[in-house]
Amino acid sequence: MRPPAVRMVDVAALAGVSAGTASKALNNTGQLSQETRDRVLQAAAKLGFTPDSRGRALSSGRTYTVALLTTDSTGRFSIPIMRGVEDVLSAGELATVLCDTRDDPLREQTYLRSMVARGVDGIVVTGRRTEPRPPIDVPLPVVYAMAPSSNPRDASVIVDDAGGAAAAINHLLSLGRTRIAHITGPATHRSAVGRAEAVAATAGEALCGEPLYGEWTERWGRQATDVVLRQNPDAISCGSDQIARGVCDRLRELGRSVPEDVAVTGYDNWPVMALASRPPLTTVDPRLEDLGRRAATLLLKAIAGRPHHGVLELPAQLITRESTLGS
Amino acid sequence: MRPPAVRMVDVAALAGVSAGTASKALNNTGQLSQETRDRVLQAAAKLGFTPDSRGRALSSGRTYTVALLTTDSTGRFSIPIMRGVEDVLSAGELATVLCDTRDDPLREQTYLRSMVARGVDGIVVTGRRTEPRPPIDVPLPVVYAMAPSSNPRDASVIVDDAGGAAAAINHLLSLGRTRIAHITGPATHRSAVGRAEAVAATAGEALCGEPLYGEWTERWGRQATDVVLRQNPDAISCGSDQIARGVCDRLRELGRSVPEDVAVTGYDNWPVMALASRPPLTTVDPRLEDLGRRAATLLLKAIAGRPHHGVLELPAQLITRESTLGS
Repeated sequence: MRPPAVRMVDVAALAGVSAGTASKALNNTGQLSQETRDRVLQAAAKLGFTPDSRGRALSSGRTYTVALLTTDSTGRFSIPIMRGVEDVLSAGELATVLCDTRDDPLREQTYLRSMVARGVDGIVVTGRRTEPRPPIDVPLPVVYAMAPSSNPRDASVIVDDAGGAAAAINHLLSLGRTRIAHITGPATHRSAVGRAEAVAATAGEALCGEPLYGEWTERWGRQATDVVLRQNPDAISCGSDQIARGVCDRLRELGRSVPEDVAVTGYDNWPVMALASRPPLTTVDPRLEDLGRRAATLLLKAIAGRPHHGVLELPAQLITRESTLGS
Repeated sequence: MRPPAVRMVDVAALAGVSAGTASKALNNTGQLSQETRDRVLQAAAKLGFTPDSRGRALSSGRTYTVALLTTDSTGRFSIPIMRGVEDVLSAGELATVLCDTRDDPLREQTYLRSMVARGVDGIVVTGRRTEPRPPIDVPLPVVYAMAPSSNPRDASVIVDDAGGAAAAINHLLSLGRTRIAHITGPATHRSAVGRAEAVAATAGEALCGEPLYGEWTERWGRQATDVVLRQNPDAISCGSDQIARGVCDRLRELGRSVPEDVAVTGYDNWPVMALASRPPLTTVDPRLEDLGRRAATLLLKAIAGRPHHGVLELPAQLITRESTLGS
């Protein structure tokens, strides 16, 4: 069934070089003229030569595989991060292995042992929370994406959550809104607290009442709307798109129009919420694919012996839609 | 940094056997007494011996890695399938590599060449549609999950979509509903057509008007509600939870109560829709983790030289909630 494999010697013969020279050219090692290297690569392309990864792993000590360790079993955050990671790694012909720990420390340990035994080249660690997390203990290059390592010497890439929240508030202020309420998730979540603090700092005098902490649900958005309306806001900034969608639904039920009476902003740019909301939500996109691309780039550098140290913060992006701009 | 590795000879020494015997016991090969095998395994456990996968790959010709090829870049369907696949494979210490083709045939070809070159043991192919798909051409064991191969000799595992749709209708009939309308997705999608046919066949005389085809969106659910209400239904069965959520929202806006005036059912059991809906949805759960587990089990058998041929249909499960039962 398996077609007869094209061998390195076939490539060497067509290129008119020795097998050793062909190997050096294909593995990008040794001292060869550019012309010889090109001739071998052209011969390999012509014959459809596929390097055998296992052989390559043996000679280089590398498996050309990177593990993505995630606690986010729904995939809502890890899938866009993985796409970004793959964009960078697949260009370098590295495979990405997704390991879903399901937030279980024992499962995480098992995966890590298996990945080390399998000889992966490096690990990207991600999750669904933004709290710093304990570093993983492996003798390999590691980059943390979204949830930074609690060790500031480790390489971490995170979203500038405060900047994203501030951008939403500046947008509301630029539209002339002067009474801005804030509804968000649990006070025990760093993402909720960080966004709320940025909202308060940016809104200043325009902040209307205290930030209201609760759950990351539409239901909480609906309930909290009744509370914040007592303060008579002309804008409600929300810590997530789910909350913002609930706010829009409740405002409509109460006969208040969005954005004419009250402008509403979300956070996440999760299409199933932000676009299905009535009206569609102005929101903050954390650009998770960018996060994945940057994490993968740092990991490649670490694998090449040039590790990064410290936390890198990437900008989020404000996306404006009808919930603040009208139709 | 890397702790001194425990070597096979250390295990052999502790067990009081030769290195060759230790190797046979750890690789489960050769002729050894159960007692000797146990002694070696206990010594390995005591020392925390981790077999080197690359060494194992060389001796067995296997990489103990399986690829999951998906076209579903949002991960909504592929993540639960992957969890099921991992449940089965990780018990056998196989790693799962997720390859997201983003529905791009060129990207699919690139991934397949890379996986073959890397020597994966087998491939699970999945997607976000249920249409039969062209088989992939690789010299490896392959199992198709969700979207079956168009070659009936290939091993495919699919959900009994018609059975799931019928279960929802039988539930409505058992509640005494006699005028059941059906709203679903595009007439070009096999999942929409298959469910609609099962609804019509099961409802019989109770079917109210023709099935209404449109989009898999909440907006379509709201729009279509106005159309089907002209037929005065006492139940609306929907092809997806998104449609059903839109139907519930529109019925509430029109002052009709769910389920007292009109009972509503969804399909997918997607928590973010089915639980956030007001009221929460009675729906059909396609049990995608089961699908993944079964696909992985068939793949393991194929890798062991016992391939399955043909399509295996797994049951979906009716989940009852307030949208039919009331509160």
